Amino acid sequence: MISSVVLLGSGNVATHMARALHACGLRILQVYSPHREHAQTLAGMTSSQATHRLAELHPGADLYLIAVSDDKIGEVVREMAPVQGFVAHTSGIVNMNLLDKFENFGVFYPLQTFSKKRFVDIRQVPFCIEGNKEKTRQRLFQLASGLSDSVLYIPSASRKQLHLAAVFVNNFPNHLYAAAAELLREKDLDFSILLPLLQETAAKMKELEPGEAQTGPARRNDVNTLREHSTLLEDHPELKEIYQLFSHQILTKYHDKL
Amino acid sequence: MISSVVLLGSGNVATHMARALHACGLRILQVYSPHREHAQTLAGMTSSQATHRLAELHPGADLYLIAVSDDKIGEVVREMAPVQGFVAHTSGIVNMNLLDKFENFGVFYPLQTFSKKRFVDIRQVPFCIEGNKEKTRQRLFQLASGLSDSVLYIPSASRKQLHLAAVFVNNFPNHLYAAAAELLREKDLDFSILLPLLQETAAKMKELEPGEAQTGPARRNDVNTLREHSTLLEDHPELKEIYQLFSHQILTKYHDKL
Repeated sequence: MISSVVLLGSGNVATHMARALHACGLRILQVYSPHREHAQTLAGMTSSQATHRLAELHPGADLYLIAVSDDKIGEVVREMAPVQGFVAHTSGIVNMNLLDKFENFGVFYPLQTFSKKRFVDIRQVPFCIEGNKEKTRQRLFQLASGLSDSVLYIPSASRKQLHLAAVFVNNFPNHLYAAAAELLREKDLDFSILLPLLQETAAKMKELEPGEAQTGPARRNDVNTLREHSTLLEDHPELKEIYQLFSHQILTKYHDKL
Repeated sequence: MISSVVLLGSGNVATHMARALHACGLRILQVYSPHREHAQTLAGMTSSQATHRLAELHPGADLYLIAVSDDKIGEVVREMAPVQGFVAHTSGIVNMNLLDKFENFGVFYPLQTFSKKRFVDIRQVPFCIEGNKEKTRQRLFQLASGLSDSVLYIPSASRKQLHLAAVFVNNFPNHLYAAAAELLREKDLDFSILLPLLQETAAKMKELEPGEAQTGPARRNDVNTLREHSTLLEDHPELKEIYQLFSHQILTKYHDKL
């Protein structure tokens, strides 16, 4: 069983993982971050040691959890000494094999958006697990199951597709929210007036397929409204581009016309 | 005070309005729909009469609430006899003045997405009110205040902008959810794995500005991930078009580069 962890990273994912592992009774032996103060802050929250030097990594942990940003994982791996414990990264997109200099390696990917300031219920977060050996998979699965009710074995190809799909339900809707906020600001309206609609749009997905839930002028082929909306967007070329692309795609999908 | 209502329409908005008004103790005198059975169904739920003929509209209601689809409002108004009561439509985009053959007319626009099957807490729904006279505005405001905690006077120009912004937080995110579902189906993954992320993306908006909450590869200018995602979308030209447009806009917005 995995009972001691060295955590590499001090960002949003690292912080939430450290808190969750600590709360579940795991010993966080050490927190590494190239930024000494960041390492110290997170170490302070989890009663562990801090280091900003990979050469000083504790050699005897059961698990080395690499939760640095995607493009830094390779560099961290290169500088790490070979270790006996399991080594896993938390990335949705990075190949598991980037860790193949170790004997037991895998992926421990929490599919959620994390901000340091916001509480997230880890028990609801799906964990995607992969491992180079049956034993690695099992141990990582077991560890994730202690944190969350939703743990899945997902091979790299599927995990990457999932990571891509996550962009479509997280980053891109967020960009649309920003567009709406811009339109409201222009008329001195508060963004909060849209919150019930925004929340209900997401909540509906618990019961309906996205295809069933699709509504709006393009779905109804309501040409008057489409025209009126386009006119309102004259001074917003970027929003107009989004409006036209989406309306065209929705029209084509549901009415089979161009 | 408005205490009796004739409801015109039998769709999603009409159904939720009828239920809410009935639950608040208003008398629904009559439900009109060109589809006789639809009128009867909704009338049955609200202890009222049904008609499918505008010529048979009850002449003595305090309010005629027109909740038919946007492009049918003009037609309904043309066929209605002049009435003494208030007349209001529930549309986000139709001009109030379309009702100017009546003496007291206005707008009673609930800013929410309604499905017949889903319960919506009307008290949380923002109502946008407009009226041709101070008295009309006041009465409609008063009526909405009985249903909801969030009632606002909104002139037509602002209401239309709000309706447009609503498309950006409702119809378009829904289209993105459908895109994500398509990607998951391809790998035999269940859409439910994305639900916690999808919900959290919306929930974050209660605390953060959309600009602060923006994350993802384009926000980080993570070119490796952007490239890898684009490759995964080779066989999905429509999703790729969305991906490229959004990534480009997010990159430009936060990194000021083209």
